[in-house]
Amino acid sequence: MTFLFRRVVIVGVGLIGGSFGLAAKRRGLVEEVIGFGRTEANLRIALQRGIIDSYTFDAAEASVGTDLLLLAVPVRATRPVMQQFVPHLPSGCVITDAGSVKTTIVDTLESLLPDRLPFVPAHPIAGTENAGAAAAFETLFDDRLCILTPTEKTHETPLCRIRALWEGVGMRVEEMDPQTHDQLLAQVSHLPHLIAFSVMNGLVDSVSQRIDPLPYAGSSFSDLTRVASSPTEMWRDICLDNKAALLAAITNFEGALARMKEAIHEGDGETISCDIERAREERNRLTNLKERK
Amino acid sequence: MTFLFRRVVIVGVGLIGGSFGLAAKRRGLVEEVIGFGRTEANLRIALQRGIIDSYTFDAAEASVGTDLLLLAVPVRATRPVMQQFVPHLPSGCVITDAGSVKTTIVDTLESLLPDRLPFVPAHPIAGTENAGAAAAFETLFDDRLCILTPTEKTHETPLCRIRALWEGVGMRVEEMDPQTHDQLLAQVSHLPHLIAFSVMNGLVDSVSQRIDPLPYAGSSFSDLTRVASSPTEMWRDICLDNKAALLAAITNFEGALARMKEAIHEGDGETISCDIERAREERNRLTNLKERK
Repeated sequence: MTFLFRRVVIVGVGLIGGSFGLAAKRRGLVEEVIGFGRTEANLRIALQRGIIDSYTFDAAEASVGTDLLLLAVPVRATRPVMQQFVPHLPSGCVITDAGSVKTTIVDTLESLLPDRLPFVPAHPIAGTENAGAAAAFETLFDDRLCILTPTEKTHETPLCRIRALWEGVGMRVEEMDPQTHDQLLAQVSHLPHLIAFSVMNGLVDSVSQRIDPLPYAGSSFSDLTRVASSPTEMWRDICLDNKAALLAAITNFEGALARMKEAIHEGDGETISCDIERAREERNRLTNLKERK
Repeated sequence: MTFLFRRVVIVGVGLIGGSFGLAAKRRGLVEEVIGFGRTEANLRIALQRGIIDSYTFDAAEASVGTDLLLLAVPVRATRPVMQQFVPHLPSGCVITDAGSVKTTIVDTLESLLPDRLPFVPAHPIAGTENAGAAAAFETLFDDRLCILTPTEKTHETPLCRIRALWEGVGMRVEEMDPQTHDQLLAQVSHLPHLIAFSVMNGLVDSVSQRIDPLPYAGSSFSDLTRVASSPTEMWRDICLDNKAALLAAITNFEGALARMKEAIHEGDGETISCDIERAREERNRLTNLKERK
C-alpha cells in the first residue's frame, strides 16, 4: 500500500481535524496520525475513537519524522502554534491548513515559514454546528468542495500532493486566489453565521416579552439559526480576520432587508412581491445547482 | 365509525389544505372532502392523490350539506373567498382557517360571518418551502403545534371540535389571543422568512462580482435560505397583514446585527466573543427544548 504521507501531525483534533484523521486513516492515505492540541480530554476521545494513533503536547516530539502538518485551529491560533513547530519540523515537511479565512493565514505563514517547509493553503468547506473530536465523522468531506489558494510562493509538488490528499478524503478540489476566496466565503458562509448569531441575540434583547418565543419556533427558525451553536473562538477569529469582506457582505444584506422593511412599512404589496419573487428565483437556482451535482 | 365532521370543504388545496385532507381522510376524521380552488390542474392532482373526493369552482354547490369549511389560502384572500360562501353555507357549518396571521383574519371574519356560522381561528404551525397539492403529505402535522386564537365571540362547542380535529391529524394544540400569536410568529417565523429573502436579494444585488458565489454555498447558507423558496403570494400577504409586529421584529434584529457589525469594524474581539456566546447559549436552549419534546 502506498501512502500519500507517512506521518501526519494534526494540530487541533476538532470536528475538521478529527474527521480528517478518521477519513485519511481509514482510506489509507496516511500511515500514522499524531494528535496535538490544548485539551487532553479531547485528545483522549480522539485516541479512543481511532482518529489518532497517539498524542503529545510537545511540538519537538510531534515533529520527529513528520512529513505533513495539518493546522485545524481557530485562524488566529495559526502564528503561535506554528512558532512552536518551525524549529523542529524536518525539511520538506508539508504544511497545510483548514482555515476559513485565507488572506491572513497566507500572509502569516508565508512570512513565518522558512523555504525548507512548503506551505499549501487549503479550505475544506465542510462542517456542522458541533465541535470537538466527539463530533468528528469519516464522511464529513464526501462530495464537498475544498478550495486551495496557492500563491506565487506555493511549490508545484506539495500543491499536487495536498490536492490528492483532499481528493482522497472525498472532496472536489478547486483553486483560486486568497482574496477571491475570502470575498466568496464572506457571502456564503460568514454572513449566514453572523445572521444566525444576530437572530438569537435579537430575541434575547427583547426580554420584555411576556411569553418565551422559542417553544413556538418551527423549522424555518430552527434551520435558519442552526449554525448559531458554532464554536465561539473559531467564529470570533473569522470575524476579525475577514473584516473587510464581511463588512461589505453585511452592508449588502442590510440594504436588501431595509428595502423590504420600507415596503412593509409603506404597505407596498407590489414591491414586496417583486422582492420575494427575485429571492425565490435565486434560491431555486441554488437548489438546481445542488441537484445537478 | 364516528366522524368529527361529515362533509368538509377545503378552500385552497395546497401544502396545508392538501396535507390536512390526506390526514383527515386517512385517519377517519371526516367522511367526505370537497376541494375548492382557483387552479384546475392543482385540484386534479389533489383528486388523483386521494386528497379530495371531488372538486368544484361553485361555492353554492360546494356548500350543500357541508358542516366544516377550512380556509387554507393566502391571508388576504380570506374576505373575497368567504363572501362567495356566506350566502350558501348551511347554518351551523363550522368555519376554521390555517392562516399565519390571526389578528386581521379574526377581524375580517368576525365582521363578515353571521351568527349562524361559528368561526374558530387556527394556525397549524407546519409547512415546508414547497407549495401545491403535489407537495402535500399525510404526516406534515405530526407532533407539530397548532395555535387556536379564540375570542369572546368564539363558541365553546365548535372550539372543542376544531381542537379535536387538529389533535386528530397529530398536532399539539394550544390557545392564545390573536395579538400574542402575531407577535410570537413575527419573531420565530415571519422574520426568518424575510431574512432568507433578503440574503438571496443581497447576493443578487452584488452582481458586479466576478464569480457566482452560489456554487460555493455550504450547508449553513443552504439551511439559512431554504425558506426563500416559499410562495410569493402567501408571504406578501403575511408581510402586509402582520406589519406592526414584523417591523418590530426586524428592528430588533437589525439592532443585534448592527452591534456585531460595529464590533467587527472596531476589531473588538471581546464584544464579538460575548455576542457569539450569548447567541450560542440561546440556540442551545432551543436545541434542548426540541429534544425534550
